[in-house]
Amino acid sequence: MSETTPTPRAVLDHMMRHDHFSRWMGIEVLDIAADYCKLRMQVRREMLNGFGIVHGGITFALADSALAFACNSDGRLSLALDLSISYPRAAREGEVLTAETSLRNKARKTALYDVLVHNQAGEAVALFRGTVYRTSRKVMEG
Amino acid sequence: MSETTPTPRAVLDHMMRHDHFSRWMGIEVLDIAADYCKLRMQVRREMLNGFGIVHGGITFALADSALAFACNSDGRLSLALDLSISYPRAAREGEVLTAETSLRNKARKTALYDVLVHNQAGEAVALFRGTVYRTSRKVMEG
Amino acid sequence: MSETTPTPRAVLDHMMRHDHFSRWMGIEVLDIAADYCKLRMQVRREMLNGFGIVHGGITFALADSALAFACNSDGRLSLALDLSISYPRAAREGEVLTAETSLRNKARKTALYDVLVHNQAGEAVALFRGTVYRTSRKVMEG
Amino acid sequence: MSETTPTPRAVLDHMMRHDHFSRWMGIEVLDIAADYCKLRMQVRREMLNGFGIVHGGITFALADSALAFACNSDGRLSLALDLSISYPRAAREGEVLTAETSLRNKARKTALYDVLVHNQAGEAVALFRGTVYRTSRKVMEG
Repeated sequence: MSETTPTPRAVLDHMMRHDHFSRWMGIEVLDIAADYCKLRMQVRREMLNGFGIVHGGITFALADSALAFACNSDGRLSLALDLSISYPRAAREGEVLTAETSLRNKARKTALYDVLVHNQAGEAVALFRGTVYRTSRKVMEG
Repeated sequence: MSETTPTPRAVLDHMMRHDHFSRWMGIEVLDIAADYCKLRMQVRREMLNGFGIVHGGITFALADSALAFACNSDGRLSLALDLSISYPRAAREGEVLTAETSLRNKARKTALYDVLVHNQAGEAVALFRGTVYRTSRKVMEG
Repeated sequence: MSETTPTPRAVLDHMMRHDHFSRWMGIEVLDIAADYCKLRMQVRREMLNGFGIVHGGITFALADSALAFACNSDGRLSLALDLSISYPRAAREGEVLTAETSLRNKARKTALYDVLVHNQAGEAVALFRGTVYRTSRKVMEG
Repeated sequence: MSETTPTPRAVLDHMMRHDHFSRWMGIEVLDIAADYCKLRMQVRREMLNGFGIVHGGITFALADSALAFACNSDGRLSLALDLSISYPRAAREGEVLTAETSLRNKARKTALYDVLVHNQAGEAVALFRGTVYRTSRKVMEG
């Protein structure tokens, strides 16, 4: 049979089925397309840190999941090399966070994405930047 | 009564009591001292991502918790400004991860820490670097 | 006499007078305003690295100067804490590079800027991000 | 004739011959070996910024050159992907800065290095971290 390239949605569905932690976070996919992803989740009590605000690892994980879905959307397995994050504003229990990716550069073997996380008021909660290495392997085998 | 500075252990205990997510992760405190913290946790199935390895957000969260406990250890509230992480090696279900901080620079208002996360074989799983802003507020009021 | 806040242009002129390296680079100021700066320079032979392209330190320095002029534009001395850069595309001798800042977040004591460096064809040459600490000192004394 | 792998020193000499900016900076090679480099230079007046201290781009360039010599030392062309720097302490005219690399991780296609820049008193002036992509091309052709 001829080889077909899976759609971004098919790749995401495949990844999400195995992504226990994104499911634990209650991540909802708002949009998925080539090199692009938009996710949403609500901050629950068990996501808070010692200061009563969302744990930095949760906000990071939301952005990281958005990056993973965007950079693997062409079915070619990509691996995160360097990730960085800054937190302009804290988020609290009950707030709804949205993460949206922006492709900044795509080369043959690497790519660079920004991910902006904002709250329901549209205020920036996190600025995330990620560089990925694009392997020649496929996300979905066979 | 005179004001007393809490010990690093007392500050950590105070933070940990409210830190729902660190508790969800099953974080165990191996060591805490001035400007220093060492944590351990085991990777569970619900921490995995779509590739069957630990979600980047979990490893980040472990390192971030270690940073938070270290940089707040003098009782002065510190806030993360910029955090970055690289993942030399994936971690799988059942692996035991240890995060250990190293203070690289401490100025009057800011500080810089490295956090190394390694697995039970001593292999580096993540290199994390964080810059914090040291406010003049206290972690524990009153 | 009453104290007056210097204009962004006056602060820049003051800094530029002492900024030997920006002058060596031949930096030209295209625009300066509150929290904003746009600079231009041409790549000369003595700016090249061992691969015959512009040395990463030169592109970084151009972005760093733009950041410095933008974040000190209110006359309050700011210090760079963490700076990061990625290079989507190499630049060669004779190319004209433009660096333009974007304020992403401004808090009481810290601020975050992006600086985009592009060539004369409008192609991105560098993505630069900087976090600064805003001291209570002034750039221009007296 | 059979193909021979050039020594780290031969690769550095080749790169340095073309590296106009490292030569302008007056960089002196203290040590070069596989995956390792140690450089030194003195801060001159024309390297200062608007605050009378060394321009951030100069310190960055010194670290970046050390990274380039270390990561290309096996003769395989490597390209910087993400670079970050923090400045614990300012350096002034006349100070002698030393940059020394530490390999943190080397994978098939990428590598991660830290570069520490210190002054003649042994005080840390910059903490630099770089991720590189290891191409399959050679630094020296033929």
